[in-house]
Amino acid sequence: MKLAILGAGSVGRAVAQLSEAHGHSVIALADSRNAIVDSRGVNVNEALEHKMNQIPLGDSSLEDVFECEYEVLIEATPTTLESAEPAFSHIKQALEADRHVVLANKGPVAERFEDLQVIADESKGDLRFEATVGGGIPIMSTIEDIGPRNIESVKGILNGTSNFILTRMAAKNLSYGHVLAEAQELGVAEADPTFDVGGIDTALKCVIIANVLSGGGFSLSDAKIEGIQHISNHALNLSDSYDLTIRLVGEVAQGEINVAPTLVSKMSDLSVGGTQNIIQIQTAHAGVLTLAGAGAGGGPTASAIFLDLQRLKRDYV
Amino acid sequence: MKLAILGAGSVGRAVAQLSEAHGHSVIALADSRNAIVDSRGVNVNEALEHKMNQIPLGDSSLEDVFECEYEVLIEATPTTLESAEPAFSHIKQALEADRHVVLANKGPVAERFEDLQVIADESKGDLRFEATVGGGIPIMSTIEDIGPRNIESVKGILNGTSNFILTRMAAKNLSYGHVLAEAQELGVAEADPTFDVGGIDTALKCVIIANVLSGGGFSLSDAKIEGIQHISNHALNLSDSYDLTIRLVGEVAQGEINVAPTLVSKMSDLSVGGTQNIIQIQTAHAGVLTLAGAGAGGGPTASAIFLDLQRLKRDYV
Repeated sequence: MKLAILGAGSVGRAVAQLSEAHGHSVIALADSRNAIVDSRGVNVNEALEHKMNQIPLGDSSLEDVFECEYEVLIEATPTTLESAEPAFSHIKQALEADRHVVLANKGPVAERFEDLQVIADESKGDLRFEATVGGGIPIMSTIEDIGPRNIESVKGILNGTSNFILTRMAAKNLSYGHVLAEAQELGVAEADPTFDVGGIDTALKCVIIANVLSGGGFSLSDAKIEGIQHISNHALNLSDSYDLTIRLVGEVAQGEINVAPTLVSKMSDLSVGGTQNIIQIQTAHAGVLTLAGAGAGGGPTASAIFLDLQRLKRDYV
Repeated sequence: MKLAILGAGSVGRAVAQLSEAHGHSVIALADSRNAIVDSRGVNVNEALEHKMNQIPLGDSSLEDVFECEYEVLIEATPTTLESAEPAFSHIKQALEADRHVVLANKGPVAERFEDLQVIADESKGDLRFEATVGGGIPIMSTIEDIGPRNIESVKGILNGTSNFILTRMAAKNLSYGHVLAEAQELGVAEADPTFDVGGIDTALKCVIIANVLSGGGFSLSDAKIEGIQHISNHALNLSDSYDLTIRLVGEVAQGEINVAPTLVSKMSDLSVGGTQNIIQIQTAHAGVLTLAGAGAGGGPTASAIFLDLQRLKRDYV
């Protein structure tokens, strides 16, 4: 399919670089300042090398991107919460032009799900957002295939940064502050880590799941959220002596969203280590279905986007 | 969708009973002797009660089933290997009438994959077989969505009976023969357990995966197979002292299919307990994706069939 990619951060770059190998053609690529549009296919490597050397991607504008003959808009810009902009406006513009949209961006589907539904319902284009939850793990597609009404609850570990910190604190008996500093050096945690360690990222993902399970109605303000900032080595050591450990678990059950540090058995699936993500789907007729894998990173997130494209193809070819 | 169900064993019965709740209508149901056909919808509970009381399901024949206005044939008959009959003929007849087919039956896709592909390619109907591998775990759909060429290898535990036996032998230090007898009493193992404990069931599932990854070319004779019949308590105890355990692992990698008892870390995902199944998909760009859940049973297998129906709907509505 012909792709227009908005955003040239790690996700946008990975999608651009892997598109050809997945049978797609990038005909537009934009960062926050410039864009390159080429109906015969953008020279992705050249454009990204320009960007790396602080040279503009190309001499086109965002308006030019929306005017080109793209079939699918890949929305991977950095987006603020609450307003969900600029992603929301980009999605709206593409859907109103009857194009498909694949999101890598939690804001719009967490904070403005119902607004998006209205716009998507009136469009011939489809809106997909596998990449917003659990990186390379096909959580949203699996929920879609099983069918929301056959799902009783969902819980999981959906933030790699928090999980990395908890895993390493427990394994090496290192303090929260120490491991956070390490994670920041490794690029696993942001300079301001609140979004991850405070549970907000996990909560947003749970809000998206809740919206899909219930057909909308949830936003971040509906989630009860507790982060991992106050987990002590004492608590981890005590857990350990009972073969337990602590994980930041997000749960969607009976119309409620809870994110909190939780005791889990070290033998249980939920005790995944490092930056792994895991989700457990309690189904009506097939017991608990568990999915685990890489929850973040350019490659895994791009893979989720290609999975969405594959499903669009199944629907529309 | 309007379903015709062939086979009234645990899977056929579960599909029939759960169809209405999933938005489908059963218009034909057949066991090996009789059938009931009703274009307004079969009274499933009544028919199954008849069967339980040794009364014929209805007064129709298999020919009547194929003449009714079904949209999807659910093939859940017991089928012999190699010839893959009678399932193969049923599938052929339905596809040649441009109907969809959903399989619960490993034989045809393991032993006659290429023959089926030819028939399916000429049909307006689609052939799906999620339920043949891993019960309620959406393994085949996930492979389809990721795309075979983005998958490097697949390995997993795909036979609940063997896994139940190994888990219990290790946990209670009981002999293979003792636990096998228990499993037979519980209905977890067949009277002749060779198909499960000898690794044949696992191998068939691996053959199906290999066929999908490579577009065909594999049958059971291509698999190297070793079962669990000779695993001793001594071997399990020795493993245990190194924090390892033994699992019957099937693997598809580089065009080869191997099924054998394998040492796995007790902390690894592969050390699932009881009748659980698990699969690890090594992807090109998203690391290892792990799926785990109920690998057998009426409910989980029926759920896989409904998942296929859901995907047919996405394709054709």
